[in-house]
Amino acid sequence: MDLTELKEKLLMMAIQAERAVNEALRALIERDYDLALQVKDSDREIDRFEVEVDNMAIQLLVRAPLASDLRMVTVAMKIAQNLERIGDEASKIAKRARDLSEEPPIHVHIDLPGMAKLALNMLKVALDSFVNRDPTAARALIPRDKEVDRLNKEITNHLADYMMQHPDAIKRGLHLITISRSLERIADHATNMAEEVVYAYEAQDIRHTGMKAGVSSRV
Amino acid sequence: MDLTELKEKLLMMAIQAERAVNEALRALIERDYDLALQVKDSDREIDRFEVEVDNMAIQLLVRAPLASDLRMVTVAMKIAQNLERIGDEASKIAKRARDLSEEPPIHVHIDLPGMAKLALNMLKVALDSFVNRDPTAARALIPRDKEVDRLNKEITNHLADYMMQHPDAIKRGLHLITISRSLERIADHATNMAEEVVYAYEAQDIRHTGMKAGVSSRV
Repeated sequence: MDLTELKEKLLMMAIQAERAVNEALRALIERDYDLALQVKDSDREIDRFEVEVDNMAIQLLVRAPLASDLRMVTVAMKIAQNLERIGDEASKIAKRARDLSEEPPIHVHIDLPGMAKLALNMLKVALDSFVNRDPTAARALIPRDKEVDRLNKEITNHLADYMMQHPDAIKRGLHLITISRSLERIADHATNMAEEVVYAYEAQDIRHTGMKAGVSSRV
Repeated sequence: MDLTELKEKLLMMAIQAERAVNEALRALIERDYDLALQVKDSDREIDRFEVEVDNMAIQLLVRAPLASDLRMVTVAMKIAQNLERIGDEASKIAKRARDLSEEPPIHVHIDLPGMAKLALNMLKVALDSFVNRDPTAARALIPRDKEVDRLNKEITNHLADYMMQHPDAIKRGLHLITISRSLERIADHATNMAEEVVYAYEAQDIRHTGMKAGVSSRV
């Protein structure tokens, strides 16, 4: 077992996390109660992946890897933790999709699928930057979190206005606000992953120039 | 630098995280805009702690510690990540406290301070279980997350009903729902920390009996 296998495991985990988010969104849009239920299974699989990644990481650390690989392994564990949380958010979205599928539809113009697409693309870029040891790509990703934050605020404000005009839709509006916030969290996790990549690889660069790692800051 | 120093650093970080949450809550209750602003500083200090913990952890790992200490170090890094997120939640609470301090007060019976007390107590127990290598205490903590989830649901439902009767209070109600959810997240992070402690120390126990760590599951 080596670093390559650990990376492959993380990629499989990321694909599963992406699938869970997509399933949850599809359940929401198609008002599909059963599909929403399935997301729980995907989430459980993601949890298992995290345990596997951790065990692989510990095995690698026990063998006292080179300092550069060591940092890679600890970042892998943190990325796994972020992916696990993304799975949790997918579960939360699915739970709200289930609740909404049992209520009358609400007609409001908000682009949750567009927001999801943005967040999932960030996840992909963050993962790639880790696998390719590319802190520049990771650093470029970080400001994009603001775009998702802005979308979340826009959607939440729009829904708040809608709720004021339609008090009977307040509970459904709250479900949609929760879903929007979950998507925003997914983008947060992707951003955290990118920050870990920057921190890991740029801290190494600093160390190579003879400066102390202790002076590096987290982007 | 040794494991004891790493534990001390984590304890200091936890105290800072607890302080940030308490400050944010106090800013909310006392409608104190300036105090809410200060929470940002506390959060920045927590971020610095995380970098320090990570650097200490990497230094310890480079020295190829014993397998048991190695697991302790990786758990310390994960706990630091959870504490950092707790600091983020404190910042979010403070942001909403600031927004609310600029609006007329809303008179609604919800026990956010009680919920905060519960969540902060969970944080303390989780930290202690790590420092004392006490997976039994950590395991006992995990079901208490349900209590905080229940409180969050209760508060959210109560606020939703209030908003239906007072559509003019919807924006303020949403701020309070967000704060309730942040407290629920803080309890989630404490639970994650407890799960790490169980996983770390019970996996070790299993390994000591000659079973593979790979078969252990995350509680």
